[in-house]
Amino acid sequence: MKPVRLSARAWGLEKSLLRQIADLAGPDCINLGLGEPAFPTPRAVLDGVSRNIGRWPLGYSANAGLPELRSRIAARAGGDLDPSCVCVTSGSEEALFLALSILVDPGDEILIPEPGFPSYAGIVRLWGGRAVSYPLRPEDGFTLRSESLAPLLSEKTKAIVINSPSNPTGAVHPASELQRLAGILDERNISAISDEVYRDLYYGNDRPASIRTWLPDTIVVDSLSKTSAMTGWRLGWCITPPGLAQAVTAVHQLAVTCASVPAQRAALLVLEGAADEERRANLIELKRRRQEALSGLKVRLGLPFNDPDGAFYVFVDVSSWKRKWGNSLQIARDLVSRAKVVTIPGIAFGSEGEGFLRFSFAGTSEDFAEGLDRIARLRSKA
Amino acid sequence: MKPVRLSARAWGLEKSLLRQIADLAGPDCINLGLGEPAFPTPRAVLDGVSRNIGRWPLGYSANAGLPELRSRIAARAGGDLDPSCVCVTSGSEEALFLALSILVDPGDEILIPEPGFPSYAGIVRLWGGRAVSYPLRPEDGFTLRSESLAPLLSEKTKAIVINSPSNPTGAVHPASELQRLAGILDERNISAISDEVYRDLYYGNDRPASIRTWLPDTIVVDSLSKTSAMTGWRLGWCITPPGLAQAVTAVHQLAVTCASVPAQRAALLVLEGAADEERRANLIELKRRRQEALSGLKVRLGLPFNDPDGAFYVFVDVSSWKRKWGNSLQIARDLVSRAKVVTIPGIAFGSEGEGFLRFSFAGTSEDFAEGLDRIARLRSKA
Repeated sequence: MKPVRLSARAWGLEKSLLRQIADLAGPDCINLGLGEPAFPTPRAVLDGVSRNIGRWPLGYSANAGLPELRSRIAARAGGDLDPSCVCVTSGSEEALFLALSILVDPGDEILIPEPGFPSYAGIVRLWGGRAVSYPLRPEDGFTLRSESLAPLLSEKTKAIVINSPSNPTGAVHPASELQRLAGILDERNISAISDEVYRDLYYGNDRPASIRTWLPDTIVVDSLSKTSAMTGWRLGWCITPPGLAQAVTAVHQLAVTCASVPAQRAALLVLEGAADEERRANLIELKRRRQEALSGLKVRLGLPFNDPDGAFYVFVDVSSWKRKWGNSLQIARDLVSRAKVVTIPGIAFGSEGEGFLRFSFAGTSEDFAEGLDRIARLRSKA
Repeated sequence: MKPVRLSARAWGLEKSLLRQIADLAGPDCINLGLGEPAFPTPRAVLDGVSRNIGRWPLGYSANAGLPELRSRIAARAGGDLDPSCVCVTSGSEEALFLALSILVDPGDEILIPEPGFPSYAGIVRLWGGRAVSYPLRPEDGFTLRSESLAPLLSEKTKAIVINSPSNPTGAVHPASELQRLAGILDERNISAISDEVYRDLYYGNDRPASIRTWLPDTIVVDSLSKTSAMTGWRLGWCITPPGLAQAVTAVHQLAVTCASVPAQRAALLVLEGAADEERRANLIELKRRRQEALSGLKVRLGLPFNDPDGAFYVFVDVSSWKRKWGNSLQIARDLVSRAKVVTIPGIAFGSEGEGFLRFSFAGTSEDFAEGLDRIARLRSKA
């Protein structure tokens, strides 16, 4: 048997570095690499599923999702959004995948944040586009600066991906910068894709701004994964301007037919408000964990970091360890093997992330403290 | 606001004709267009989910799926398949989508059956390939003939999609033809993608053959949708040769992260055997419905068709209605609006399907009989 000829897009594709490191975690490890809240799916959702699974229709839904779910999502998004602009997806990952599929032609440039979620570049490349990174700098608190972005735009720029609150830094982009960016994009007819999966996880007084406020044709990708502790359910959505909805749903049909119907039913419970109280309680608990995590980091490791304003990550500057310990990947690997602590090396989020480690406070405060202790002990031995 | 520039692949993409017609069905319609069994999800699965949903871990699974589920799938596939060759997907649709993503380069030719499931051509085109139809002829009972296929192969042929039992005809390809085809493909280093979603729904004595028996590197796409009445759950899998598993899982990660975990848990119950009895009972019931459907068609409509050996479709020759009534699309539309019966026009499965209507006997025999009555009444008025 001769070897199968892989398509060019499939050559060299491999597990993301983020997953590679996360998968190193043995049962004896403290996992501070978590990309999901350690809360269970809200009780009200589990109870609702348990009670109703035998009664719900569980055949195919319409490709774009259950009509009542799309209506709820549209109402929640505001701005008199028509439900026909909503496509229910297998998590925000698929929403992003679809959004880029209908925009990217070979050679198109897509601006993506760096450090940023590794799938942005992966999906852009899969569809034949060129991922152009826009740097988010520690000296700006990793927030977006529209003026530093402008020089990166070219005739080939088709879209920009914006993520606020951000993974891996927890940065929330200022409304003023998003408004300014909206003006630039509008003028140059460049699409915005706003990844808002962490938008309901914030630690200031106000809900983080969305560029959609100033750019109504923004494509929004969102999900219940992070905000409702439902990562494994795979339930997200893509909001598009009316002219794009048909194309998004057509690709979605070819990719997965429809989102998992039990997950859609569970999502309807959440959007009807069944889990509101638990969501609020979880956010309060996350605030507490954040506070403990930040003090712990200061006291135990004494390394620089920016206080995150959203999500559940702290991006810690470990560049001072470099001379003795190597780059972020070497440090992260060492922490797993010698301290039994999983963190994510900054390089997993692009070269702008080098010199940092991502710590997640989505787990318990006890685990976080124990993880820091283990790292501190290893450091003191070094 | 200027219009967004759609990617070339997204231009003109629209809902499949199959879906368009199916979506015309009002509540007053008899739906003989069903692409899913009218049985509910097996009771044992619903009970298991109801009992355990609060206890199962419901965070992200590994991208390729729960290890125990992949092991069960591998064991079921036979041939000492290693579980690392299994990727659990959002239904067989995603499995097919992934398989083609890692094979198709722009300009590559992929052979697809015609009449055949419309997603084959749609996905091939989405990935930049050229779908080359191989005809399945009514005079051959719509079964595959390797000798008529050979002239269609070219230097650009990368793969062939095989579907047995077939949608929309219910044809089961003879083992001898599959074996012969395997030899041709092996010699020319062309990949086979075997869509086996109907393989456990057959009406002869023996389970339909798979080309994988003679071509171990066959990519198999399969799911629980049709055989276990779980269409809405979106649970399928892709089986690849070892060298391709990493690429499939990498695209899968970028497309959906992982299959919905509650659906994976439910699938594990099925593959552990919890639904075996119900699956057997459903197949016996389908056999009965098939028998009634075939006699009804003969008696009430008197049109030619081939007895289906698998799946739950009959592909009925309506070419004799053409002069008075028009093509299959016109007939199908008319049947919806004037007889309140949904059937799928053959043209939805490619031009080789023109002159036919697909009737589904996945619903109740009463509905099937009533649908035929309505059509016969309309015909007698014409």
